[in-house]
Amino acid sequence: MIHVGIVGAAGYAGAELVRILSAHANVKLTCLTCRQDAGERFDTIYPALSCWADLVCHTYDVKAFIDAKVDLAFIALPHKLPMAIVPELLDNGIKVVDLSADFRFKDVSAYESCYQKHTAAGYLQKAVYGLSEIYSEQIRQTGLVGNPGCYPTSILMPLIPLLKAGLVEKQGIIADSKSGVSGAGRSASAATHYCHVNESFKAYKVASHRHTPEMESVLTDQCGGPIPLVFVPHLVPMTRGMQSTIYTGLKGNCTEADIWDCLAGFYEDKPFVRLRRQKPVDTLHVKGSNFIDIGWKIDPRQNRLVILSVIDNLVKGAAGQAIQNMNLMMGLEQTAGLWQPPCPV
Amino acid sequence: MIHVGIVGAAGYAGAELVRILSAHANVKLTCLTCRQDAGERFDTIYPALSCWADLVCHTYDVKAFIDAKVDLAFIALPHKLPMAIVPELLDNGIKVVDLSADFRFKDVSAYESCYQKHTAAGYLQKAVYGLSEIYSEQIRQTGLVGNPGCYPTSILMPLIPLLKAGLVEKQGIIADSKSGVSGAGRSASAATHYCHVNESFKAYKVASHRHTPEMESVLTDQCGGPIPLVFVPHLVPMTRGMQSTIYTGLKGNCTEADIWDCLAGFYEDKPFVRLRRQKPVDTLHVKGSNFIDIGWKIDPRQNRLVILSVIDNLVKGAAGQAIQNMNLMMGLEQTAGLWQPPCPV
Amino acid sequence: MIHVGIVGAAGYAGAELVRILSAHANVKLTCLTCRQDAGERFDTIYPALSCWADLVCHTYDVKAFIDAKVDLAFIALPHKLPMAIVPELLDNGIKVVDLSADFRFKDVSAYESCYQKHTAAGYLQKAVYGLSEIYSEQIRQTGLVGNPGCYPTSILMPLIPLLKAGLVEKQGIIADSKSGVSGAGRSASAATHYCHVNESFKAYKVASHRHTPEMESVLTDQCGGPIPLVFVPHLVPMTRGMQSTIYTGLKGNCTEADIWDCLAGFYEDKPFVRLRRQKPVDTLHVKGSNFIDIGWKIDPRQNRLVILSVIDNLVKGAAGQAIQNMNLMMGLEQTAGLWQPPCPV
Amino acid sequence: MIHVGIVGAAGYAGAELVRILSAHANVKLTCLTCRQDAGERFDTIYPALSCWADLVCHTYDVKAFIDAKVDLAFIALPHKLPMAIVPELLDNGIKVVDLSADFRFKDVSAYESCYQKHTAAGYLQKAVYGLSEIYSEQIRQTGLVGNPGCYPTSILMPLIPLLKAGLVEKQGIIADSKSGVSGAGRSASAATHYCHVNESFKAYKVASHRHTPEMESVLTDQCGGPIPLVFVPHLVPMTRGMQSTIYTGLKGNCTEADIWDCLAGFYEDKPFVRLRRQKPVDTLHVKGSNFIDIGWKIDPRQNRLVILSVIDNLVKGAAGQAIQNMNLMMGLEQTAGLWQPPCPV
Repeated sequence: MIHVGIVGAAGYAGAELVRILSAHANVKLTCLTCRQDAGERFDTIYPALSCWADLVCHTYDVKAFIDAKVDLAFIALPHKLPMAIVPELLDNGIKVVDLSADFRFKDVSAYESCYQKHTAAGYLQKAVYGLSEIYSEQIRQTGLVGNPGCYPTSILMPLIPLLKAGLVEKQGIIADSKSGVSGAGRSASAATHYCHVNESFKAYKVASHRHTPEMESVLTDQCGGPIPLVFVPHLVPMTRGMQSTIYTGLKGNCTEADIWDCLAGFYEDKPFVRLRRQKPVDTLHVKGSNFIDIGWKIDPRQNRLVILSVIDNLVKGAAGQAIQNMNLMMGLEQTAGLWQPPCPV
Repeated sequence: MIHVGIVGAAGYAGAELVRILSAHANVKLTCLTCRQDAGERFDTIYPALSCWADLVCHTYDVKAFIDAKVDLAFIALPHKLPMAIVPELLDNGIKVVDLSADFRFKDVSAYESCYQKHTAAGYLQKAVYGLSEIYSEQIRQTGLVGNPGCYPTSILMPLIPLLKAGLVEKQGIIADSKSGVSGAGRSASAATHYCHVNESFKAYKVASHRHTPEMESVLTDQCGGPIPLVFVPHLVPMTRGMQSTIYTGLKGNCTEADIWDCLAGFYEDKPFVRLRRQKPVDTLHVKGSNFIDIGWKIDPRQNRLVILSVIDNLVKGAAGQAIQNMNLMMGLEQTAGLWQPPCPV
Repeated sequence: MIHVGIVGAAGYAGAELVRILSAHANVKLTCLTCRQDAGERFDTIYPALSCWADLVCHTYDVKAFIDAKVDLAFIALPHKLPMAIVPELLDNGIKVVDLSADFRFKDVSAYESCYQKHTAAGYLQKAVYGLSEIYSEQIRQTGLVGNPGCYPTSILMPLIPLLKAGLVEKQGIIADSKSGVSGAGRSASAATHYCHVNESFKAYKVASHRHTPEMESVLTDQCGGPIPLVFVPHLVPMTRGMQSTIYTGLKGNCTEADIWDCLAGFYEDKPFVRLRRQKPVDTLHVKGSNFIDIGWKIDPRQNRLVILSVIDNLVKGAAGQAIQNMNLMMGLEQTAGLWQPPCPV
Repeated sequence: MIHVGIVGAAGYAGAELVRILSAHANVKLTCLTCRQDAGERFDTIYPALSCWADLVCHTYDVKAFIDAKVDLAFIALPHKLPMAIVPELLDNGIKVVDLSADFRFKDVSAYESCYQKHTAAGYLQKAVYGLSEIYSEQIRQTGLVGNPGCYPTSILMPLIPLLKAGLVEKQGIIADSKSGVSGAGRSASAATHYCHVNESFKAYKVASHRHTPEMESVLTDQCGGPIPLVFVPHLVPMTRGMQSTIYTGLKGNCTEADIWDCLAGFYEDKPFVRLRRQKPVDTLHVKGSNFIDIGWKIDPRQNRLVILSVIDNLVKGAAGQAIQNMNLMMGLEQTAGLWQPPCPV
């Protein structure tokens, strides 16, 4: 039984970790921390989880993690906070999956240019980017994973195989993404007020979202760069779900069947990737699950490829992929605790 | 491994049966039927279930069920159709859980007064009403369960213990219930059109819904009648979820703690019943799960009890309870395949 | 041209006042105040109103209202605040429609038992309860209106004529009401977070909402008391709209046609009341308008009347009725500025 | 008073015409037709419009339009049907605004390649494309307007001024658009079922929607072609609203201020165009109104312009623009009957 702790359990990603891990046959949750609701039982914060999560939340303290014999800790805090605690966890032999941006970058200057000064930069080279299907070998070996952002997950997974295979152009890629509101987190704000979201569709952080450099650095690492992206995220009136529509130029006479061959070959034996040739690519179809569904269409008049991908932003886009990474790090089947059918409606 | 077949798998209740049974460790789905989509793979009808449900749907034929060695069949058809096929299934040694109203009534005239002529009335006495927590002993012994309606499940479960204990009056009970749209089924109609549901709240079938006699006959059976209900259902702009607010007169000086004692005693060791003293009673907290959450409040000025209950109409209100009944009928733990935490949001 | 000012313009009721008054042919908005967004143009706070509302919001000061030659002020502040400023507005000859609870009660002790100490109790007798169709004569004569709560508007309007006519029992009335989220106001909170509202239906303040004494005191004033209510409000995942389902005992052999005669007679020549015999009673049908739609059904088995009513909580339940009252107070047609067709979807 | 008739009044665009025209001071609705609900009062079909629309719907007959002294007819039928009746309306001196695609194309082969054979091709040259702000002079002179599609309205209005001014490249334009469900019309189908739309976001008709040639032909007419578009529409879980995110290459050293100058100059004195420099571009802000809000952002790293536009698909995208065109054709102010503030929430 793997002993697991969660730092920042009361946010949405944290709660989703609790949900999935509560039913994970190889895991025992032994330590939950959160600042605002310290002292509360977890199912008081999230009554949906009554009968499942009766641990009391504490304020974070590495000693508590040691006492609870934690083998692996998930950190579900806003960026900047994790870099202060990752070193002490690792130093005490506790593996870490950090869901923030703090350990996603190899290049400290890239991180610092869009976040802030990094106080644990020495750990960046040890960290592995947790895009599970792409970096699975490195993830199996590491003690520290920087779990990907939700947008990058939905965009990188279809792009990397096609770029590696040389089927699409590296220049002029556009990613137009749409996210449910849970991506904005649990904090109440004008932006998450029901009356401002309902019947509203809007772009935000147009061509200035911090996931752009994250994606560009991974693409460069995987496919050789530079591969600049125009990236525009939008907010959709729904709780969960993320859809990306990606526009790329095609190289040569590539057909839709060629795209299939490339993706199907690359993602053979990757159980969470579902390629959609005839079926629609719809956020509803992955809700609550760790699947990513990928479809595509060629506009022959302009030799442009349009790629569609969907994930549940809280699962494959956050907690689910984090647990997939834990499974890899701990030598479990990567599907352990994650293999559940999505709801039909 | 129990071999299971589903008649009418393409409706919402059928699809929810497929979802839950696909991940049920003791079950192998061997036969799916549906009329409109016969010849299609199930995951073509419900692409969410790709990687989970690749059986092809056929038109119904008892021979196919025999050939598929079906031990137990779920029937998820509109009322009137099940009565034509239940006898032949039973005659071939196949147990049946019927989700329609056809086998919910003991009294054929009660059924016929609000549905239509019953052509298999001889089976009504053999059938057990599948309110799992109430009739568990009889369900374990029977080959035929009439699975309860969603509204009755949400209303009967809190009422029966209180009426049996003599804490509340039998006269003047009012049940004001609210249902998500999935309760209206998969058929496209003006009533289920997104633009007519969104931003709309409305009552329907005011004091004339066919679940009223179903509830009254069960209450009479359990608690001695007559116990007439005023029942008004409403439609809520959400996919899943059902909430009932039930108003009853209190007998004597009953306190909220007395209500707790009564319900907690009655539902001790019933894992799907969660009593809510401090926590809210919210459809979101049971979504996707087989839980029923029950809360209550006394209006002391008028000695009235207000009971609140919530279920997921497709799970505890339909497919989940049906599987709970299957578990009882087949000698499994009643939680088998059903014990999953609801999503925190 | 009537000069109008609004105190607390930045809340939802205030913004709805701005919307309707901006297009009111007899009104010139000359002064807007709000605390948090003072110094901002109103259409910066509510960009939907660009081209319509370019006034800058100030912090409240009676002198500004005098300088702006305000004839009538709307106060859209939380209770307790209005009582501090109503006297000085009235003393300067400015008529007032207050949308809070501060001037809804005749009996100061009733107010103080559920709100807090009243520091302007001397004005309670001068104030008229602004249920426009019921108190229209008194409203025309007064300088101070206490505008009704949203729930009371939806419940009192159908009940008063029936109680006055002696068709229904005064005892045992139950009102089960459902409100859209805008009723909770513009403040961001856990309760208004999109992810907590979406796919959620729940009761709140069960049998303890402060609108209960408001309703009971008006019923007593109109129909003779005591007329105690059991009142349970619920929250619906939609922005606007309020529905009440009201259960009463019938006296004698009253038919649905008798109910029609009573209501149709009482509300003859009241343009905002639409009686629904055949048509559904649906929040969607009144959205954005000042209409109240009322329907009913008798449960003959128990001689119970079920009344259904719907309003837009921000219009007939707040800003619209406040403007209707302004029209009455200023000698305009009561429909002035309010006579617009609701959207078909 | 202008006498107006509507063919196909029972669809959503038709109903929206009825809503707006019912309150239009210069219009008298004298004839409504629809097939399915012939014989019904309009407010039976759309109960929201009780007190506003009591005309009975008939099956279409040109004689009825003549008898009703119709000056101008709106046709809100699916394409193919209008071409059969437009000639006889025009021949009887009745002006026509057709909301289908039948009279949007100058080039009959372009129409026929994506719709079907045109049986009234002789009228195509007489018809004016009803993009009100662009073709206002021609619209004032014509008797026949082909009202634009909703997607083209949202995409063409920001693009035309920028292309005409030579600020953006003609090649490589991508339009990623998102529409509320009312765009799919009133017909009940699997695609419009609440449970398939709620919590769902998906693309459809990827790079194959028939609005693409419509847009390309208008762009060529206005700006010189060819100007090929990659166009991908998506469906959003909301009733009304349409957002387009448009990606174009910039020519030279164009700044965001240059874009402002271009658009502000072009749309000076166009009351329904709101340029958004600081304010968000949000479907909620135009809901129910005839406004189009336009914003933009430059990605300097790649010299790409990202344009954002929003409309209410049923108003500026259909009925509202049609009425704007009627106003122009009949010599009224173009804002007549259309100048209403959107709701703040």
